[in-house]
Order: sequence, then structure tokens, then C-alpha cells
Amino acid sequence: MHHASDILLLLFIVFVAAQIGGEIAQRLKLPSVVGEIAAGCVIGPSLLGWVTPEQIAIGTPLDVLSEVGVVLLLFSVGLETRLDDLKKVGRTAFMVALIGVLVPFGMAAVWAHVEGLNWDRSMFVAAAFVATSAGITARVLQELGVLQRIESRVILGAAVIDDVLAMLLLGIVVSLQGGESLNPGHLLVVLGEALGFIAVIGWGGARIMRWNSAWLDTPRHAQSPLLIALALCLGLAYVSTLFGLAAIIGAFLAGMIASETRQQHTLETQTRPLLTLLVPFFFVVTGAKIDLHELASPDALWMLLVVTAIAVVSKLVGGGLGALSLGPRSATIVGFGMVPRGEVGIVVASLGLAAGVFDNRIYAVIVAMSLLTAMLTPPVLAGMLRRWPSPQFAAQNRNDSIQ
Amino acid sequence: MHHASDILLLLFIVFVAAQIGGEIAQRLKLPSVVGEIAAGCVIGPSLLGWVTPEQIAIGTPLDVLSEVGVVLLLFSVGLETRLDDLKKVGRTAFMVALIGVLVPFGMAAVWAHVEGLNWDRSMFVAAAFVATSAGITARVLQELGVLQRIESRVILGAAVIDDVLAMLLLGIVVSLQGGESLNPGHLLVVLGEALGFIAVIGWGGARIMRWNSAWLDTPRHAQSPLLIALALCLGLAYVSTLFGLAAIIGAFLAGMIASETRQQHTLETQTRPLLTLLVPFFFVVTGAKIDLHELASPDALWMLLVVTAIAVVSKLVGGGLGALSLGPRSATIVGFGMVPRGEVGIVVASLGLAAGVFDNRIYAVIVAMSLLTAMLTPPVLAGMLRRWPSPQFAAQNRNDSIQ
Repeated sequence: MHHASDILLLLFIVFVAAQIGGEIAQRLKLPSVVGEIAAGCVIGPSLLGWVTPEQIAIGTPLDVLSEVGVVLLLFSVGLETRLDDLKKVGRTAFMVALIGVLVPFGMAAVWAHVEGLNWDRSMFVAAAFVATSAGITARVLQELGVLQRIESRVILGAAVIDDVLAMLLLGIVVSLQGGESLNPGHLLVVLGEALGFIAVIGWGGARIMRWNSAWLDTPRHAQSPLLIALALCLGLAYVSTLFGLAAIIGAFLAGMIASETRQQHTLETQTRPLLTLLVPFFFVVTGAKIDLHELASPDALWMLLVVTAIAVVSKLVGGGLGALSLGPRSATIVGFGMVPRGEVGIVVASLGLAAGVFDNRIYAVIVAMSLLTAMLTPPVLAGMLRRWPSPQFAAQNRNDSIQ
Repeated sequence: MHHASDILLLLFIVFVAAQIGGEIAQRLKLPSVVGEIAAGCVIGPSLLGWVTPEQIAIGTPLDVLSEVGVVLLLFSVGLETRLDDLKKVGRTAFMVALIGVLVPFGMAAVWAHVEGLNWDRSMFVAAAFVATSAGITARVLQELGVLQRIESRVILGAAVIDDVLAMLLLGIVVSLQGGESLNPGHLLVVLGEALGFIAVIGWGGARIMRWNSAWLDTPRHAQSPLLIALALCLGLAYVSTLFGLAAIIGAFLAGMIASETRQQHTLETQTRPLLTLLVPFFFVVTGAKIDLHELASPDALWMLLVVTAIAVVSKLVGGGLGALSLGPRSATIVGFGMVPRGEVGIVVASLGLAAGVFDNRIYAVIVAMSLLTAMLTPPVLAGMLRRWPSPQFAAQNRNDSIQ
């Protein structure tokens, strides 16, 4: 009579573990996301085993809840982001994305070649080092309430462009690996489509909303702006995958155009309980995917250290160089904000493993590196953001206290 | 790179279909839940096939989202229900539940025996006619804003007791069917445990919350009462399945004890966006389960009509008799409010099919009956509630206009 029993227990365990982990992290003056990922690692297959690998596999209920969670998270970050603010930092964001893709790609390809892979395979491995996963950084920025800082806007803008470049690069290495010759015309079409999608939705959508958003208030009931915004969020998240982009890019764009409406404040309030329920699933599942057994040998551990160092340093240098015009401190913040690879690196690694490009050991190390960067970034980023107040903000606060 | 694509499309389709269905229903002056169920039927396997039977099977992401949706729905209904109000109608609710279980059980058993099953099997069939599914009625009552009416409180109280009795009855028929002799001592223990759970949680929990609920406000962030309330909701939903009860009973109790806190109003506001996102999945999935193909023959259709008539009339009479002390109109409302069988009848039917108690045809008819009662109840119930204002309410409104 009660098939729902097992899954309810699982949801309860994941939800409560996230809260306990978050609470402990906060007491240790760490962002709560660190505690949530750590909680996932503890209750996951590596340690307690309360969550099994089968329960977090692709397409399982927990995986879908986690996907919906990160989609809603980026939607809410979009809600706090204005297109005009992004446009102001457009050039910097583009440089951060471009150099921040090229440097990790180059460094990782050299490392893989030194490890004995041929250049085609090395470039495939390197593609797993490229794409920033915006979820982790976005949550830290949101939690600290610094989404309005210039560094935050650069990071968010760069994350969107970064995803386009990473998608393109993955397309290239997959063709090379498959023995196909590169078709520059085709690549241009793919690039054009993705940029066109972003431009039409981001720019056109924002214009429409700014012009008239009364239609969001259907007379049906008080939740009507949220109804339509959620449909927009799910719809654009899906459509962005059709253009080869991550679902969270579409969700971010949906939030950004919804931020142009006069219901923006209501939407922010209404979205918060959704984040409370669903976002923990994303971070706990991320943590549960960390497989400590694969890293038990000194060899693997050493390789992981090297790989993670390459991943962190290359993104920090690449992203930082792109943002150097903001000054050294802001450039460091931006560079670090781009470090987390999260699930994107994992997915590329899975593709490589399935295609026989590399073996289980390299796969495990790349997955661990992706998760480790996700784990390392929040405390460092939070520390820097707290220690180095934004020049704008300092000025603004001074004005406020004068008035 | 984008495994999430398919599931996002599915979520988008289900969510938007629910909104369109709900909107159409509202324009036709019907409760929106009717439109949501109808939308599920349209996009489901019977008609458009955009949602396949595999996508709504037990344990799939859609099934889990729908389960979480109905759990949150009953939690929010609990939030609007005070224990003291339920206690006042306790005796009536008990009579409604008891007679409302016995009459359908008896009538359905006779029908199944006439259809040629032996008495043991007939009683198994009859068990599928017994348990009211509170989700449908609760949503109608909530949508019309009449959860404070005496009939609503009787229905909710009766739904809790009804679930205990149905669980007990199912235990009996399963033993009989399995050829075991009845063990009255064991049944008493099962009954005692379930009632003990409800009493300890409902009564004890309410007392604790009334005494001190400051601990719900952890300093962490503004969502803290919701955090703890959601953990309570998921936890009690799970625990109630351990006592053989439906998950929604635990969720309802969680809501009811949370309604005793001073954060009750905040919790109601915070729960609403969660309902907006998740409840549509429950009703659309319910509708998508309706299999019109199985009912294509005149024979099956005729049997369905007879079975549905028995299901409706027996619950209306049984529930109505129990509530006769409220007057004939209120008794009719209560009786009709108990009519929907929803997923509980389906689960019993699945057990019977798996145990070889009856054939595919009877199974399909029982499932269709369960869904048909869920579909028929909202418009009739809403009509009666609108036409017959509550005596209390009429008095209250008069007082209000005098002041």
C-alpha cells in the first residue's frame, strides 16, 4: 500500500543531512554549501552508504530533484541580475571566459600528453578542465549577499560565455577523437546558434518584460507571476540544452528577464521557499558522488593533487588575467569564482570513459578533481569577499552614512 | 553533456499542461483540480502520449515529484487546521469514517460475489472501495477557502480515521486471502500502534508547539521555520508509512502541529510557492494514469458505470449517515467529500492483481473507478459548497456586516 516509503526516507535523510551540514559549516564560519557537500560525502557511498550509487545515478528521482534544484538556484540568481549591469561588464566577462577557457585547456592537454596520451586524447581530457559550473559560485555569492558586486557580475557573465566556448570546444575534441576532419562552417553555425539563442532570449526577453509585464498577473490567484516565471524557467532550461548549452544557462536567462518585470520583488520572495526545499538536493547529491575508495592509493592521490592544482591554478590565472582591468584583488576573486567545475567536468569525463579515450583511473581522478574544486572554492571565495570589500560598495556605504 | 534535457522537457510539459487545464476549468467555473486531472488524461498514454506509462511508473522522477506534491498539499491543509477544531468534531468524524468504511465494503463485496468471486476474494475487491484519498477533497476545500467550515473539519478528521480503518481492513482481507486464520490480538496491536502514533504526534506535538516554538527560528536565515517544518513533514510522512498509514496522514499531522506555532502564518506564506510548483505534478500524474483503452468495450464501460455508482453511492450514504447530526445538507457535503478513492484504491487493486485474486478486467475497472471518483467529486463538491453556505459562516458574515 505504501510504495512511497523508501523514497520518503531517502528525501528526509538527504534534506536533514544538508541542514545539519550547513549548520556546522556556518558555525565554522564557512559557507553552508561546503557543509551540504560534505554531508553528501558522509551519507554517500564512500562513508555511511545511506545513499547508494544507484540512488544518485542519472535519471533517478534524487538526480532529477538535484537538477531542478540547481535550475531554480540559477533562476533565482538571474532574478537578482540586471541585463544592463551585465552589459556594462560585457567586455571583461568575455575576456575572463576566453582566457579562462584557453589556459586550463592548454595546461591540461600538456599534462595528459606527459602522462602518455596522444594529442587527440589529451585534448579530450583537457576539455573536462574547461567549463565552469556556475552553481557553486552562484550560491556563495547569493549567500553572502554580494550579487551586486562588480566581480559577481563579471563571474556570471563569464559563466554564460564560458559555457558557449566549452560546448564548442567539446564539439571539436569529440570530432577529432572520432577521426572526423574539422568542419569550420559547422562549428560557426553551432556557435552562431548558441549566441543567437542567448541574445534573442536575454536581450529580446528583457525588452519585452520591461515594456509590459502586466500579463504575468493572471487573475487566477496570488501565485500567478510565479506560475508563469516557473514555466519560463523550465522551458528555457530545456531549450538551452537544445542549443548544446547547460540547462542552468537557460534558467539564468529566464531569471534575468524576469528581473526586468515589476513583479521582480514578489518573485524573489516566492522563489526562496523553493530554494529552501530543492537546492540542498543538488549539493548533497554532488557530495555523495565523491568516491573516496577510488582515491585510496598513494598514486591516485598524488595524481589527484597534481590535477586539482592544474585545474585551480589554470582557471585562477586565466580568469584573473581576463579581469585584470578590475585591479589585482577583484581579478583574484573573479579567477577563483571560475574555479569550480562541478558536474560539467564529470559529464565530459563520462563521455571520454564511454568512448574509451582514457581508463578508469583518469576518469576517477577527473571526477574527484571536479568535485574537489567545487569543495575548495566556497571557503576561499567567501574569505576573499569578506576581507576585500568592493570599492563600489565602500563608496556606496559612505554615501549612505552621509545622508 | 546534457542528460537533463529529456526530463526537463517532461517537467515543462506537465507543468504547463496543468496550468492550461486549470485555467480552462476555472473559466468553466470548475475547480482547477478538475482541469489539472483532465490535462493529465489528455497528455497521458490514452490520448496524446506525451507522457508514457513508463514515465509515471512507481519510483520514477514524475511519480516522486507527484508524491512530494501531495505530501506538501496535505501539510499545507494541516497548517490551516487546529487540533482543537478537530477535537470538537471528533465523534462525528469517527462515525463518518466508520459507517463510511462499512457501507462501501459491504456493497462492493456483494457486487463482487454476484460477479462470481467467492467471499474471500469479494472482500479483497471490496477493500479497494474503502479508503478515501484526502488529496482531491483537500485541494477543493483549500481552493474554495472553506477549510474552516465544520464540514471540512469533519471530512479531514474522518479521512485520518478512515485511513486507519482501511489499513486494518486490508490487513484482514490479505490474511483471509492468504488462507491464514485471523489473529485478533495481532490486529489489535496494529490498530493500537496506528492510533497511538496519531495520538502521540497529533496531541503531544501540538502541546509541545503550543508551549514553545521559539526553537523553530534558528538564527541561520529567514527560511528557518520552513526548514524545520519541511524536515518534520518529510519525517512524519515517512514514519506514518511505518505504521501502515498513508504518507499524507503523517504530512497532515505535521502541518497540524506546525499550525500551533506562532510562525504559522509565515509557514503558510512560505508553503504556497512550494504548492505552486509541486502539486500540479500530483494531479497531472493522476490524470495520466487513466487508461481509456481498457474501457473501450461496452461491457467494460457498463461494469465501470455500475462500479462507480456503487463507489459513489455507498460512500455518500455511509459518510452522510455518520454526519447526519450536522443536518441533511452538511451530511451530503461530508458524504461527497469522502467519495474520491484516488491512488489508494489503485494500490489495493494492484495488490489483488499481483496476488491473482482477480483478472485484468476487474483491475482496470477498479483503477478507472478510483480515478473517476477523483474526477467527479470536485465539481459536485464545489457546487454544493457554493450553493449551501455554512450556517456558522452565514452567522459570522451577518456579524461582520453589522460591525
